[in-house]
Amino acid sequence: MAYRLVQRMLFLLLAMACSAVAQPLPSWNDGAAKQAIVKFVADVTAQGASTYVAPEDRIAVFDNDGTLWAEQPLYSQFAFMLDQVKAAAPKHPEWKRNAAFNALASKDPKAIAAIGQKAILELLVVANSGMTVADYDSAIRAWLASARHPKFQRPYTDLVYVPMQELLAYLRANGFKTFIVSGGSVEFMRPWAEKAYGIPPEQVIGSQQDVAFGMKGGKPVLTRAPKIAFVDDGPGKPVGIYRSIGKRPILAFGNSDGDWQMFQVTAAGEGARFVGIVHHTDDVREFAYDRKSHVGKLDKAWDDAVAMGWTVVDMKKDWKRIFAFDP
Amino acid sequence: MAYRLVQRMLFLLLAMACSAVAQPLPSWNDGAAKQAIVKFVADVTAQGASTYVAPEDRIAVFDNDGTLWAEQPLYSQFAFMLDQVKAAAPKHPEWKRNAAFNALASKDPKAIAAIGQKAILELLVVANSGMTVADYDSAIRAWLASARHPKFQRPYTDLVYVPMQELLAYLRANGFKTFIVSGGSVEFMRPWAEKAYGIPPEQVIGSQQDVAFGMKGGKPVLTRAPKIAFVDDGPGKPVGIYRSIGKRPILAFGNSDGDWQMFQVTAAGEGARFVGIVHHTDDVREFAYDRKSHVGKLDKAWDDAVAMGWTVVDMKKDWKRIFAFDP
Repeated sequence: MAYRLVQRMLFLLLAMACSAVAQPLPSWNDGAAKQAIVKFVADVTAQGASTYVAPEDRIAVFDNDGTLWAEQPLYSQFAFMLDQVKAAAPKHPEWKRNAAFNALASKDPKAIAAIGQKAILELLVVANSGMTVADYDSAIRAWLASARHPKFQRPYTDLVYVPMQELLAYLRANGFKTFIVSGGSVEFMRPWAEKAYGIPPEQVIGSQQDVAFGMKGGKPVLTRAPKIAFVDDGPGKPVGIYRSIGKRPILAFGNSDGDWQMFQVTAAGEGARFVGIVHHTDDVREFAYDRKSHVGKLDKAWDDAVAMGWTVVDMKKDWKRIFAFDP
Repeated sequence: MAYRLVQRMLFLLLAMACSAVAQPLPSWNDGAAKQAIVKFVADVTAQGASTYVAPEDRIAVFDNDGTLWAEQPLYSQFAFMLDQVKAAAPKHPEWKRNAAFNALASKDPKAIAAIGQKAILELLVVANSGMTVADYDSAIRAWLASARHPKFQRPYTDLVYVPMQELLAYLRANGFKTFIVSGGSVEFMRPWAEKAYGIPPEQVIGSQQDVAFGMKGGKPVLTRAPKIAFVDDGPGKPVGIYRSIGKRPILAFGNSDGDWQMFQVTAAGEGARFVGIVHHTDDVREFAYDRKSHVGKLDKAWDDAVAMGWTVVDMKKDWKRIFAFDP
């Protein structure tokens, strides 16, 4: 008796809730990409259908840089880490004899290119080490609050894509669990990912620098060590997914060859699958780049997308607006 | 108008749901340990109280071996890995010249002790490498289905502690998110942790062996490499928590010195904190061991528990029953 009453109430509540929900993905034009997404979600949530997927297996993974927010002209985290080099320089007089430091200080692109990625990365890792994770977190938050993107003159966290925010919310409303799987590091994304994307810290997977446990003034602290422990990019992404999720995603979204292996693993599962690629085609509202870009190169994954029938989102055509500040 | 109606319905539903909920922790005797747990949960869920903690910060971490299920006379995973050595031996004729293999084959405790942990661990890691993660998962599931615990002559997964299952469910019913943080490896726990504890794969944190991405017969696979990538034990537990959760737990439960640093990190946070230790005191229904045990040694963490006023659960006195098969 009480059970039937509860059932009826739940039904009424559900009907009310549904009528209040607007059409999904309002910032997406009604093209092939949006239709493919809506069809996929309908397929995997249709109980009794052969395409149905139980909620606990509705795992959706998203690259971050270039997929959920802008990554040009330079990954935001790279800009932050470079600023950390500047900030740490007074404490490192020995850097005056460091070729990578001098190349960066010269701001000469040719000198920087000549010194090579490896030497620069080593300097970046040293400059971003030695502090507790709490102090590093404070530095990241302070930087995010003050730094401005060179093209838009706005905080970097303003540069999240509204259509992707809508997609994340739409998936969660349909029982998906959403994860970030990024080449960036976890501590750089966690301070703002929950507010920007609705993704809590424990669902942010990324690259990792070594941290060491120790006692400091009688309190337990974790201190950053100058060593990269795990690179969650390219072939590392399926490893990160295996380690941190332990299930094969049924949906993956990315924008570059760094996501290629994540796409392959997602597509290789049985049943309904969705692979989406954000193609940067809008040089006015954002940036336009693909096969030849140094940041967010989209080449092999694009070939595969064509061959496999994956969904390629054309930012210029498919998105009504990109940023919340767009007119 | 509609909003107030929804509110009233929700209130009615809530009242019905609450009246249907039985008293919490029925397998716990009404002693100090149970009272401390119930008080803590009441404190952190009391809206408006100074002890209140928002649901997204109600992070609870649990050691596995000896805390959620039995670990004596040998960690179950260790028993499995030893069986893997046996199973792999025909394919490794070179092991006949391997001192660790010969010591294990002799079953002579003195010979095994003489060879040392390191050599044995190296052999175990090699014997548990080379296959895809899917094949390894199959091997684990087959072993769990067939292996029997030497004392109880039952599947190892029968040896989960009912009072801890109740505690996990009780915490989740009060808005907590529950995680395993174990020295064992993720792939050994994930196949059964959801059914046994209600903890999904993505909330299982543990030690990690290296896995490498590759293509095999046109399909992407992950293959186990003979190298330990991360030891989630002792000082590694706070690192694992930082990497995989990114928030400080407000509740930690363990049973040995391998959990000590996890306890310290949990206790060092601000606001209401709970640290619980399962003390193995029941040699009849389970096992009795602490300061001098080779498996699950509880020594330094016990001293700290006394000094800090942490909650020590006496299995014999505090638990009405331990296993589901207990009379």
